[in-house]
Amino acid sequence: MTDADGLCSLRWDPVRQVVEVIDQTLLPHELLWRQLDSLSDCCRAISTMQVRGAPLIGITAAFGLACALRDDGTDASMDAACAALLNTRPTAVNLRWALDQVTARVRALPPVRRYRAALDTALALRRADIASCARIGEHGLRLLQRLELARPVNIMTHCNAGWLATVAWGTALAPVYKARAAGVAVHVWVSETRPRNQGMNLTAWELQRAGVPCTVVVDNSCGQLLQRGLVDCVLVGSDRVAANGDVCNKIGTYLKALAARANQVPFYVALPISTIDWQCPAGEQIPIENRDAAEVLSIAGRDAGGATVEVGLAAPGSRALNPAFDVTPAHLVSALITEHGIFSADPTGLAPLRAHQVFSSRPM
Amino acid sequence: MTDADGLCSLRWDPVRQVVEVIDQTLLPHELLWRQLDSLSDCCRAISTMQVRGAPLIGITAAFGLACALRDDGTDASMDAACAALLNTRPTAVNLRWALDQVTARVRALPPVRRYRAALDTALALRRADIASCARIGEHGLRLLQRLELARPVNIMTHCNAGWLATVAWGTALAPVYKARAAGVAVHVWVSETRPRNQGMNLTAWELQRAGVPCTVVVDNSCGQLLQRGLVDCVLVGSDRVAANGDVCNKIGTYLKALAARANQVPFYVALPISTIDWQCPAGEQIPIENRDAAEVLSIAGRDAGGATVEVGLAAPGSRALNPAFDVTPAHLVSALITEHGIFSADPTGLAPLRAHQVFSSRPM
Repeated sequence: MTDADGLCSLRWDPVRQVVEVIDQTLLPHELLWRQLDSLSDCCRAISTMQVRGAPLIGITAAFGLACALRDDGTDASMDAACAALLNTRPTAVNLRWALDQVTARVRALPPVRRYRAALDTALALRRADIASCARIGEHGLRLLQRLELARPVNIMTHCNAGWLATVAWGTALAPVYKARAAGVAVHVWVSETRPRNQGMNLTAWELQRAGVPCTVVVDNSCGQLLQRGLVDCVLVGSDRVAANGDVCNKIGTYLKALAARANQVPFYVALPISTIDWQCPAGEQIPIENRDAAEVLSIAGRDAGGATVEVGLAAPGSRALNPAFDVTPAHLVSALITEHGIFSADPTGLAPLRAHQVFSSRPM
Repeated sequence: MTDADGLCSLRWDPVRQVVEVIDQTLLPHELLWRQLDSLSDCCRAISTMQVRGAPLIGITAAFGLACALRDDGTDASMDAACAALLNTRPTAVNLRWALDQVTARVRALPPVRRYRAALDTALALRRADIASCARIGEHGLRLLQRLELARPVNIMTHCNAGWLATVAWGTALAPVYKARAAGVAVHVWVSETRPRNQGMNLTAWELQRAGVPCTVVVDNSCGQLLQRGLVDCVLVGSDRVAANGDVCNKIGTYLKALAARANQVPFYVALPISTIDWQCPAGEQIPIENRDAAEVLSIAGRDAGGATVEVGLAAPGSRALNPAFDVTPAHLVSALITEHGIFSADPTGLAPLRAHQVFSSRPM
């Protein structure tokens, strides 16, 4: 799964020197690649969720910073670009991490050389993300193989942590794709993931494109599927992991973790270690984005004629609250699957990963 | 809360000798009363969910059986009508209970006298349902008052177990309305309840009409609200309670029960005792209705011009599973609130209720 097979969400055109992303707000109804040719293009792509998923947000931000330095290589330009990009989404820590990688590489350089170095770093981060996700997939596959089932492995996932959330492979879905490549039969329960339905809109779409059997369910059904023995493991991604192993991820993840634990089903979180926030001691300290109530009270879909229509769902005057993420306490997490292997979600388990926290552009 | 204040879902017009119900498939966008003038009208109203909610399904079925006996008072007609009505929805046990009440009253009568007796029984069941729900509200209010909060009581509910699910008052929402009447400040977290969104469409609508402050959230948010201490108790209804206290209710209820327990928040189930299925030893034996996948994959709402539009949400070719109910194990239920008082959800707790299982038309 590389650029070559088309299952990738962000590509660099070396001829036109421009980055392109799939506009994920149009999926599953339309596949459209958008050029991101400026800092403001990149900020808009992140804040309007044309790109989303913690790893992909980070890579997109790195390219956004490079764009800003192409137009103006000064410290002031760099600091303003970082501030603008950090302001797009508050929860995913990969965004800050990616900007830190770029600024660390370019700050000592004279302004005129900064664009090239920033672009090279962004491209290296992109390659590293693909390599990390492939490794996550290999480590996760070992966990699936250990189940030794004589039937397809039933995996439940939430939101989208597939190749649309990263550059390629994905985090939670990387083991699914590696399983398929290794001839291990899998079936994925796709939780629709209200309010933005990234499960139904993105995960089901990308699994179908990759030929992986899947079934969409409403978020409410997930407890019952676990209770009935229809799930062998839950695999989700993360937007930020605290130093104690608490996992911040799309709203609703916590309910799945509770139901998995109650029914003795393993609950795995897959992530590149750039998602770990060593400065954040515990989940309570993670800022949770509250998004517009309109995301709850209305929804877009395709009408009978194929046109995209936004429809209001609630009674006029209804009030809604729309937190985008929740925190799953570390004790409910069976293991963290990273590019460096499988670790327990606690300070002792995470300790070996601190040594890897500095980004290296060497292939892993 | 009676016929007089308009907060009622099913009314009898003694002049035209016809029953009318609110068509709940049109809410919250349109309030339309439909006449149910035949057995087939009543069957269609239940199966298409113009009426829903275990108690209201039972009362509607009783009127449907009366209609059938008006047209043909024979045993064959009565048995065929019962079979047709039982076939509309498999999970709510109140349906069978209500039909049993009517047939027990009329079977010994000559066919020509059966219609009048069946109608009188249906009207008595309707009055008894209003009285039961009012009593449920009074018992539940005591639980809310025991919290002794100096701020509004935050109640989380799921689906719709309000006056739209019964004739008046509701089950889970009856304590809310009784609290409001008693000057106890309340605020309700309304879980939207995918796939049919009865929380957003019905509960928010009926609470707004009654002037009760409420906030809609997606089902995924409920774990986080409980975790953050924003919920003082969870109050839900039930479609069937097994003899061991296991509670079958709208899909997603189980996840709320798990999250309530994990965060030491009381989880109450409110029901008339006609919802208890003494023949069913445990939750696993309750038949769970699987509904059409289209309920998951598409949704209806209002477009900008105010027209109701059905829109497709998922990628073409997506597959979905749509179980309508789940089972919450009795050990997660803090208490059952019934018209006869508050009971623990276990065989010992339920035992005193067996004495009340025979319907009495005496006012309670």
